Amino acid sequence: MNWSATILTLYPEMFPGSLGHSLAGRALADGLWSLDARNIRDFTTDRHRTVDDTPAGGGPGMVLRADIIAAAVDGVANGTPVIALTPRGAPLTQAKVRELAAGPGVTLLCGRFEGFDERIFDARAIEQVSIGDYILSGGEVAATVLLDACVRLLPGVMGAALSGVDESFETGLLEHPHYTRPPEWEGHLIPEVLRSGDHAKIAAWRLARSEADTRSRRPDLWQRHSDAAGQPPSGARQKKKEE
Amino acid sequence: MNWSATILTLYPEMFPGSLGHSLAGRALADGLWSLDARNIRDFTTDRHRTVDDTPAGGGPGMVLRADIIAAAVDGVANGTPVIALTPRGAPLTQAKVRELAAGPGVTLLCGRFEGFDERIFDARAIEQVSIGDYILSGGEVAATVLLDACVRLLPGVMGAALSGVDESFETGLLEHPHYTRPPEWEGHLIPEVLRSGDHAKIAAWRLARSEADTRSRRPDLWQRHSDAAGQPPSGARQKKKEE
Repeated sequence: MNWSATILTLYPEMFPGSLGHSLAGRALADGLWSLDARNIRDFTTDRHRTVDDTPAGGGPGMVLRADIIAAAVDGVANGTPVIALTPRGAPLTQAKVRELAAGPGVTLLCGRFEGFDERIFDARAIEQVSIGDYILSGGEVAATVLLDACVRLLPGVMGAALSGVDESFETGLLEHPHYTRPPEWEGHLIPEVLRSGDHAKIAAWRLARSEADTRSRRPDLWQRHSDAAGQPPSGARQKKKEE
Repeated sequence: MNWSATILTLYPEMFPGSLGHSLAGRALADGLWSLDARNIRDFTTDRHRTVDDTPAGGGPGMVLRADIIAAAVDGVANGTPVIALTPRGAPLTQAKVRELAAGPGVTLLCGRFEGFDERIFDARAIEQVSIGDYILSGGEVAATVLLDACVRLLPGVMGAALSGVDESFETGLLEHPHYTRPPEWEGHLIPEVLRSGDHAKIAAWRLARSEADTRSRRPDLWQRHSDAAGQPPSGARQKKKEE
């Protein structure tokens, strides 16, 4: 059984889209995963194939009906976890990506307009996930992101499986910077340590740069990393502990 | 002059991809924005059109050469800000999306493999942006996300321009939940206040739900929101202020 992605969307023609090219596209052609984009409108019962209605309590836009979404979700029921892409969801993390890639696949529910009737989340086991703190025209682009992130981790997709451990977020830190030939370019040199051939020194330099860049660029990640390591990251926390 | 997006990529065939459909696709067809995907390989000078080389200091994967990337960036130079999509970048926010949408457009540099030779960021004015804390197969899917978010804000793209202010992140809070017909579904009712017709009560309920959901689902956003409002969010901070 390959890893199966089912998409519930109002725009099935948006798939495979970018996922039909490059790494994910080759893996799709090789049968390492499968993609089934279904139109939510196929689960309507009226002549106009209506999926939405105006928001209760007033306001602009349209809301996706709980009964239609439930019919679409119930129509899949293939044992894969169901995830709705919505800005109200939990932020997607690499840990979540790894968890999904290790499972049988995923069913993705793509929001549009003002989103879903909230009752769908009371009545069905649907996880809400957000790919970031910005607003998209719909969940389709977010679904593409989630699938691209999962597919590259499937067995056989990345060549030697050498990559993937050392990268940003896998260790809770940003990845260290990279350099390559030419050794001098426009007066900028490759850091000397990287040309030393001393593997222990190189590893130490890379870890130090990972930590320094995470601290300066992503204090939020650094805080979490330090908490996880049981080391208080700031003087303030240190002080609190000593009290 | 319409809003112009230039993409520097090794996979120009991935564009417009999903951006050719739905809201962004209609706006593209209507000339509200333009999209120019250029192949980074067109800026190489050797017979093999080489864009990458092995990492200085060793390790798996390949690194995009600074001289080739510089030639590609210099070849655009159309006055739009240049953004590299990389997990080492600053997290994309709705404020950043608004800023970019209000400008002349954007030039997006899509990473692949182990990323860019770091010297490109010393030598050229290139902002580094990340769409989230997960690893993609390349920057192309991230570029699609950034463009989708920007394009929907361009004048004329969203119908009545009614939407967009009340949504998640625009106020620093998650958006309140939505409901629509039918009033009762599988025993779940629409909250009574939303059927009251009392607009002040409805607005108060929605704000309270926005705040409660942000507090429980996204303590990080809530903290930032509270800091911005000058209101200490937790007992600990309150105490500190009183000291």
